[in-house]
Amino acid sequence: MSVSFVPVPAGSDFPLENLPYAVFSTKSNPVHRLCVAIGEHVLDLKAVSHLFASPLQAALQADTLNLLMSLGHEAWEEVRTQTQKLLTKGSEVEQNVDLRSAALIPQSEISLHLPAQIGDYTDFYSSIHHATNVGIMFRGADNALMPNWRHLPVGYHGRASSVVVSGTPIRRPLGQTLPDGADKPIFGACKLLDFELEMAFFIGGPGNPLGEPIKVDDAWQNVFGFTLMNDWSARDIQKWEYVPLGPFTAKNLGTTISPWVVTTAALKPFLIDNFPQEPEVLPYLRQSIPFNFDINLEVSLKPANDSESLISKSNFKHLYWTPLQQIAHHTVTGCNLRPGDLMASGTISGETPDSYGSLLELCWRGTKTVKLQGGKTRKFLQDYDEVIIRGHCEKDGLRIGFGSCAGQVLPAPPVEQ
Amino acid sequence: MSVSFVPVPAGSDFPLENLPYAVFSTKSNPVHRLCVAIGEHVLDLKAVSHLFASPLQAALQADTLNLLMSLGHEAWEEVRTQTQKLLTKGSEVEQNVDLRSAALIPQSEISLHLPAQIGDYTDFYSSIHHATNVGIMFRGADNALMPNWRHLPVGYHGRASSVVVSGTPIRRPLGQTLPDGADKPIFGACKLLDFELEMAFFIGGPGNPLGEPIKVDDAWQNVFGFTLMNDWSARDIQKWEYVPLGPFTAKNLGTTISPWVVTTAALKPFLIDNFPQEPEVLPYLRQSIPFNFDINLEVSLKPANDSESLISKSNFKHLYWTPLQQIAHHTVTGCNLRPGDLMASGTISGETPDSYGSLLELCWRGTKTVKLQGGKTRKFLQDYDEVIIRGHCEKDGLRIGFGSCAGQVLPAPPVEQ
Repeated sequence: MSVSFVPVPAGSDFPLENLPYAVFSTKSNPVHRLCVAIGEHVLDLKAVSHLFASPLQAALQADTLNLLMSLGHEAWEEVRTQTQKLLTKGSEVEQNVDLRSAALIPQSEISLHLPAQIGDYTDFYSSIHHATNVGIMFRGADNALMPNWRHLPVGYHGRASSVVVSGTPIRRPLGQTLPDGADKPIFGACKLLDFELEMAFFIGGPGNPLGEPIKVDDAWQNVFGFTLMNDWSARDIQKWEYVPLGPFTAKNLGTTISPWVVTTAALKPFLIDNFPQEPEVLPYLRQSIPFNFDINLEVSLKPANDSESLISKSNFKHLYWTPLQQIAHHTVTGCNLRPGDLMASGTISGETPDSYGSLLELCWRGTKTVKLQGGKTRKFLQDYDEVIIRGHCEKDGLRIGFGSCAGQVLPAPPVEQ
Repeated sequence: MSVSFVPVPAGSDFPLENLPYAVFSTKSNPVHRLCVAIGEHVLDLKAVSHLFASPLQAALQADTLNLLMSLGHEAWEEVRTQTQKLLTKGSEVEQNVDLRSAALIPQSEISLHLPAQIGDYTDFYSSIHHATNVGIMFRGADNALMPNWRHLPVGYHGRASSVVVSGTPIRRPLGQTLPDGADKPIFGACKLLDFELEMAFFIGGPGNPLGEPIKVDDAWQNVFGFTLMNDWSARDIQKWEYVPLGPFTAKNLGTTISPWVVTTAALKPFLIDNFPQEPEVLPYLRQSIPFNFDINLEVSLKPANDSESLISKSNFKHLYWTPLQQIAHHTVTGCNLRPGDLMASGTISGETPDSYGSLLELCWRGTKTVKLQGGKTRKFLQDYDEVIIRGHCEKDGLRIGFGSCAGQVLPAPPVEQ
């Protein structure tokens, strides 16, 4: 493997083999533009776009990743190869001092934005351990998984407008809840605010026309890359509202994603077998290629003016349904996907209690406490708590990281009468 | 009231008092641009944009309504007043022959497109008669309405990408269903394809920031205008997939809207009292102004190579929850709305069986047949059936119409093994 002329500290999430995309701006140039991360710097792709083949240049000069996403996997490969070349020792970017100083910017000097204009956001429910845990808590162990769960990747349409980038504060929501034993709902601030540890991927390729399903074994062409996600959830509001049409205001208060989009190409060394599925799925969901990844995930909780505590360690590999099955199912009735659409995994819980991906599970519906450093405890989130999700792959000395997905809880608005 | 120099035939949906917006193109000029309907013509707003105040011109030269929607109600009023003036006898458009022939185009010569880029699409469930009917069919008369139904406008996030304009064919979907008595799902073409008679409104105004709810009595500023909608539904697929997270692939196969956006200003003469609500709703949903409308709605079904039959007559006024309550509830947890977002009513059924807004209700879950002209009958939709929804208000000689919302069912894709 070649070596970058940009220093990559040991343990960095962003070696030359990663090159995750983001949309950034600087104080001196507030225009939103594309970059890749390398070590503790970014390479401004707009500033070097003239060094790419001309059909790629417009996509690299855009203010979101949508155009690049739409170009498809051959173009993505071409951009990746050329970007790696430009960052390798001896490249023209290294040798051209003016270009280098214009295009290589320390990450400490940039602001990061949403990487794409998200047309539609879909949230799946693809972790069998999470679905089982929630089922046991609300319906008992005998009926934990719904009858459809092992036959299709259950999902629902989420709210695209309230997807925000890491660092955006999330206000504790107001809403309706039904207190235990009451026959009428009350109004007030959410008392059971939770995070959900998820990952999400962006749809790429030109998209499919309405009425034309995407085949499961073709769907890899539609996966541009992955981010971390925190799907903030108001458990008490959700419980009262969600029958029969699913979660609505309990989820649309905000969904945070990490700014870096790690490409499928960068994740290839970490491909592993798909999760075993029993019973066998219907033919349109039968996938002949592996599309599961060994990605370590961590959740930390940081109370106001305190240090953070690691409260969960999970892994992407626990997902029962793959992104390719999610795409095949999402489009089976003919739904059209567009570049920039976001598809999330649902909460990713492992088998053991230290790997659960939500406070609902970690505190087992309020029957246990989650211990933090310094003697503090939590059941659900308190005002000014910050939740930080991190993720990385590691093997044979190669580390491909996702950076972090963070958000702080702000107090609810006052209740007016 | 002034009279237009453009002929408006008796019974037209589009008198000078209506002026619904659309996005259109012509064979000779394929650029998408804005228009209003007048009689059997449209006025090309781009062609006359120089006759409007300069801050309005960019919005009238755009290829969707989003920018005009974002400008807010004072700008909308200004555009409406000036457009009416330009279409009144003696106006400069009438007198300038070149401008008149460039800007006034027969509707027979235009193609109509989606009126806006829809950021997010939300579907409510706001007809008490529809919710009660569905409840009786699936849970019995004693538990027909869910406990939350009278306390909040139940809704869910729909799929924005598959919202299409009237005239777009809809392919019968493939999908999973669980046959009665079976323990495993099967795969194949939907057998219970249905329409849903709905209306929808577009969000206008600059939008609210994430975390800042919109007050119910302020929400009228966020209602730009209304369309007809058919929310195609695969009942058999929906039944198997929708627990616990709501409808997903059963709905994202396509949602049709009429091309004309009838403004709230045009509907003002048809304002009526809100639907009485019992028990009293929570303060954040208490609305002190009327925002309900007397809009006659009709559904016709046209089998292939046959004439159409009227199968339902309903009215917007049957909706229990108003658009203002829908907005207040949608944003109560802080969800941000954007200009161009689409909010649908849910199926609008009246009290009597001839006013039900779906085949599910009209054929009462397959236990009755719906009679068509010439002896044909239906329970659910057959291939090549066309569903046509029409709507209009009428009072004291004034008719404000919505045109039509039509779509034909095409056969399902072949099932591959």
